[in-house]
Amino acid sequence: MSTSTTSIEQLSINAIRTLSMDAVQQANSGHPGTPMALAPIAYTIWNKHLKYDPANPNWASRDRFVLSCGHASMLLYSTLHVAGVKKADGSNEPSITLENIRNFRQLHSPCAGHPEVHEAAGIETTTGPLGQGVANSVGMAIAGKWQAARFGEMFGFDTYALCSDGDLMEGIATEAASTAGHLKLSNLCWIYDDNKITIEGDTDLAFTEDIPGKFRAMGWHVIDIKDANDISALDKAFTEFKKTTDKPTLIVVHSIIAWGAPTKANTHGAHGAPLGDAEIAGTKEAYGWTYGKFEVPAEVYEDFNINLGARGAEAKAKWDADFAALTKASPEKAATWSSIMSGELPEGWDADIPSFPADAKGIATRVSSGKVLNAIAAKVPGLLGGSADLEPSTKTGLTFEGAGDFEAGTYCGRNFHFGIREHAMAAIGNGMALCGLRPYVSTFFVFSDYLRPSLRLSAIMSAPVLYIFTHDSIGVGEDGPTHQPVEHLAAIRAIPNVAVFRPGDSNEVSECYKAAMQLTDRPSVLVLTRQNLPTLDREKYACPSGSAKGAYVIADCEGTPEVLLMGTGSELSLVIEAYEKLTAEGVKARAISVPCLELFYEQDAAYQKSVMPCEVPARVAVEAGLRQCWDRVLGFQGEFVGMKSFGASAPAEELFPYFGITTDHVVEAAKKSINK
Amino acid sequence: MSTSTTSIEQLSINAIRTLSMDAVQQANSGHPGTPMALAPIAYTIWNKHLKYDPANPNWASRDRFVLSCGHASMLLYSTLHVAGVKKADGSNEPSITLENIRNFRQLHSPCAGHPEVHEAAGIETTTGPLGQGVANSVGMAIAGKWQAARFGEMFGFDTYALCSDGDLMEGIATEAASTAGHLKLSNLCWIYDDNKITIEGDTDLAFTEDIPGKFRAMGWHVIDIKDANDISALDKAFTEFKKTTDKPTLIVVHSIIAWGAPTKANTHGAHGAPLGDAEIAGTKEAYGWTYGKFEVPAEVYEDFNINLGARGAEAKAKWDADFAALTKASPEKAATWSSIMSGELPEGWDADIPSFPADAKGIATRVSSGKVLNAIAAKVPGLLGGSADLEPSTKTGLTFEGAGDFEAGTYCGRNFHFGIREHAMAAIGNGMALCGLRPYVSTFFVFSDYLRPSLRLSAIMSAPVLYIFTHDSIGVGEDGPTHQPVEHLAAIRAIPNVAVFRPGDSNEVSECYKAAMQLTDRPSVLVLTRQNLPTLDREKYACPSGSAKGAYVIADCEGTPEVLLMGTGSELSLVIEAYEKLTAEGVKARAISVPCLELFYEQDAAYQKSVMPCEVPARVAVEAGLRQCWDRVLGFQGEFVGMKSFGASAPAEELFPYFGITTDHVVEAAKKSINK
Repeated sequence: MSTSTTSIEQLSINAIRTLSMDAVQQANSGHPGTPMALAPIAYTIWNKHLKYDPANPNWASRDRFVLSCGHASMLLYSTLHVAGVKKADGSNEPSITLENIRNFRQLHSPCAGHPEVHEAAGIETTTGPLGQGVANSVGMAIAGKWQAARFGEMFGFDTYALCSDGDLMEGIATEAASTAGHLKLSNLCWIYDDNKITIEGDTDLAFTEDIPGKFRAMGWHVIDIKDANDISALDKAFTEFKKTTDKPTLIVVHSIIAWGAPTKANTHGAHGAPLGDAEIAGTKEAYGWTYGKFEVPAEVYEDFNINLGARGAEAKAKWDADFAALTKASPEKAATWSSIMSGELPEGWDADIPSFPADAKGIATRVSSGKVLNAIAAKVPGLLGGSADLEPSTKTGLTFEGAGDFEAGTYCGRNFHFGIREHAMAAIGNGMALCGLRPYVSTFFVFSDYLRPSLRLSAIMSAPVLYIFTHDSIGVGEDGPTHQPVEHLAAIRAIPNVAVFRPGDSNEVSECYKAAMQLTDRPSVLVLTRQNLPTLDREKYACPSGSAKGAYVIADCEGTPEVLLMGTGSELSLVIEAYEKLTAEGVKARAISVPCLELFYEQDAAYQKSVMPCEVPARVAVEAGLRQCWDRVLGFQGEFVGMKSFGASAPAEELFPYFGITTDHVVEAAKKSINK
Repeated sequence: MSTSTTSIEQLSINAIRTLSMDAVQQANSGHPGTPMALAPIAYTIWNKHLKYDPANPNWASRDRFVLSCGHASMLLYSTLHVAGVKKADGSNEPSITLENIRNFRQLHSPCAGHPEVHEAAGIETTTGPLGQGVANSVGMAIAGKWQAARFGEMFGFDTYALCSDGDLMEGIATEAASTAGHLKLSNLCWIYDDNKITIEGDTDLAFTEDIPGKFRAMGWHVIDIKDANDISALDKAFTEFKKTTDKPTLIVVHSIIAWGAPTKANTHGAHGAPLGDAEIAGTKEAYGWTYGKFEVPAEVYEDFNINLGARGAEAKAKWDADFAALTKASPEKAATWSSIMSGELPEGWDADIPSFPADAKGIATRVSSGKVLNAIAAKVPGLLGGSADLEPSTKTGLTFEGAGDFEAGTYCGRNFHFGIREHAMAAIGNGMALCGLRPYVSTFFVFSDYLRPSLRLSAIMSAPVLYIFTHDSIGVGEDGPTHQPVEHLAAIRAIPNVAVFRPGDSNEVSECYKAAMQLTDRPSVLVLTRQNLPTLDREKYACPSGSAKGAYVIADCEGTPEVLLMGTGSELSLVIEAYEKLTAEGVKARAISVPCLELFYEQDAAYQKSVMPCEVPARVAVEAGLRQCWDRVLGFQGEFVGMKSFGASAPAEELFPYFGITTDHVVEAAKKSINK
């Protein structure tokens, strides 16, 4: 034991450790070694430094604590329990009970294998996939800086993220660290658990870089701590972090995995499996721990209560008073901030969304997207974002007065330059969304693959991040197959809890944005063209449209159609042209626009059948992507006009005929389907 | 102009520049600025340093040149043209003709928007998605080190990769750099084009890190060059690289984008758009260039011929003599090397693939995978790989004598510790495959998202990388939704040119490996369980099986079935149990195993119909993933038993019933489908 540790500190730390060991043993599954090693760090942050009121875990200006090494989830659950964190519903019930901990990793326990953000108050983000938590923490630090700059220092907060070598090996972590260093996010502190152990053995097997040197090169302040048990050194380090005003801080802490375990300490055997009863007994002996299984001495609760609890309550009370004063002095500012944090869209938010006149030449949906985004953002103060160095192409810049750039030192801007770091960009978006903002992120659609793990986490966390993807098909043209998304619509539609919008003209862009902004419990994906699309004549074709219902009849025949023609995005105009041709030939056709398959599937059966009647098996779907996601509405008799392979490098206007995506092919496919 | 440049050097460099400008202008699309800036670098490498015989571009031991900033593709095409690189077919025809360059970015031109590896000899890898090329280059350097260590120094080679700030901002590049530094790949040289320009403007907007410091921290030797036009400094730097024996080398070169252009030099306007005729005229005047459009002076060809050409021919001749000597001295070694490079599987490669006895308790397919992989690798000397720090879980270690670890200094091993760097791992696999090896890479299936952009490139490049993904469903259990793949089968099956295998028992594991190893022009993906699966009784159920055809009837009724039951992986046994139950109830059912949907779809219609007859519309598919990819065979009447949402954290045996994936539900779904 470190000499700098008093007996109550040691008792509290050991309570976190023993709860973690006991829970993993009871579940017969989990990761005991890291919670045992890092308990002193969690203790020092929570007990001595965190600005956090356990009675108000959703206080918007609280400091954030992220456990990026999510496999060590018991460290978080144990800490939240002993810290006395309450449920967010005002019930004064513990967020995590001992019973919850006893049910670690069991169905319906909030103590899941990895921390899941909505399972219990105090879990700030869902972690487990390595690198995501630290990248989220950059988004949280940005949210803190932005709120402080826009609304006043009282709205700022610090973010602590505890991470492992696994986090830091992941590319996303370096992208995030480079971003944080560039932005000089001095309210961000990462604590790196340097335990030299990985699943395959010693980290020397694959990881020998000079982490402090690498972080210094990325603009970080680095502090080294030789012993994770040295509370006094940890305490000083966190104080130093708080005093550092021009850089993020990395604290490298040398730890021993499963500290105190007689035979398994410092072995990778203690990483991902229960210690076993004998080893636990030996460890408790080494700790001098005389309490029962899952027992927490009253002094431990008291230790947190008189430190964290008292400090948090005082900070929250002061904040409340400050907010009351602000409400008096600058009612508009206070109201704007409250409006953002409410998560609700302000009155009139959609008043300026443009409608676009019919135009055969038309405009690219990325261009109308830019106009619509600006019209909304001007009314929705929490809407902010940027692109991975493609703003001139994705048209995602906010250009109205007061939007400005978010840069080191000028943190009030709403335009972000994420650099060519798609993965961190999306994870930063998640972090911002978890702090109550409405972030958008943007890149070319094909590069959605680069950020897919974070998009998946947006969906798991129900985080309303807006993904704006442009250059959405072979319409990209000369850049060729590496830049032409083909399978990406299918791949992203496959992720549960995502709404994928592919508007067919500029007015559908307006409608899709309107629908997407109202989806506050899931990410939305907007898929937009590089090339111009005709703006449909809304006098002639369905007006008002049904974009909000995912699919709607845009042009119809009299009576029951012989064939249903469906299309999205750049192929909607082919569907309409084919509809016109078939109608002229006397074929009874119905043209259906499908801007969002997910929303359509969520409509009631009556609506679905009214758009796609079961008695019409002849169907054609047209989309410059793969067939996979269309089979559900095509059945055995339906035909698909789209891509079957990767694309090619050539001017876009040559590629569509080359790959057979033409009006004539749609007409042909319709006849084939009818005659099947 | 730099004083260190002689007139012939300058002439050759300007030929590369002017060809590039002219081609982009003619295409009215492309990136002229970077080729103009980096022509001196390409020139110095190719003319003065590369071990490369233009007459034998597929010489296995040639040095590799990778253009990681693929958008600067004209730099590569121009260089290959003036360097006199021939086609690989022995025809002595130029790989890239002036006509090809005139058709830059047009349909069927080998000069695609971004370099595509199979379009022309001399293009070593497909680049464009940023970061991929540099990561490929690490795989190539590994291949060079490995061949030199296994077979002799003559088989080693150097790899040069030219990259931009966009490459280095991407996380994958840092993962790859960290790996290269760790492995001390002294045969690897990255040249970083530090031009301070990105699409959004100046790199200072988002990228201010100390690149030399960061790379030194990752174990690299760093050389700084102040002026990209200083041929003498470049020449010295490449010589220094070749002398550096314990580290990879990064050469930071400060360049001016669109160097020489009177108004567009050093502006991001020169990045992604043609310069325009007037600017081109002004630039040619600045260069003192008096030749016509697309004209290359004879002296330029001669310059490359007497330098690169003569040096390359000599090196190749020496290598041929050395190889003849080796064939005499160590015929087996020479034959083994030749066998690997032939890309063909050696005689008897599958002789030891195990078969597994029927066993109701069975074993996890990840475990049988480990046995099968070892049995094959022991016979296939070019099969080598590893995992992203999960070898004890994915069971991908090669344990037979002589397999060994690939580590700094011991480069003959066949087991790789990629670290927790999935994305670089896959791109490294691509680089190794492009050098003739048969790499496998491995992680948990859910983390396939982390490497998806590189898997896509395996498919685009027809690179036979073997992806071994374990922990393939909610069968993961307690680790919860972040670790349970749900949408990943759909998402990966969506990528063209990939074969996805999900074997239903250990004998199917053997058969799927056998099929996958024979797919030499596409990546294969093996999707394997964490949990035990029964090993089916192959006396009772279809033997021999039809795994190689993707799907086959495993148990059948007499006459036409009333319902088809299909399943994969861990759900195959549910399908068979349901088949037994239905049969006992007098329902005529057919059980179909579907280990690989892609291969099934590639069978002729007669086989497909023999397995899934059109006249049987009642169908049930069972898979612990999403329905999306099954609609094609289910039609409107089919039913699906599988996942509809993300998973949950609980023991696996509780999760399957919780999500309704049970034999009883399959039976119920079958009856529902029959009665529809």
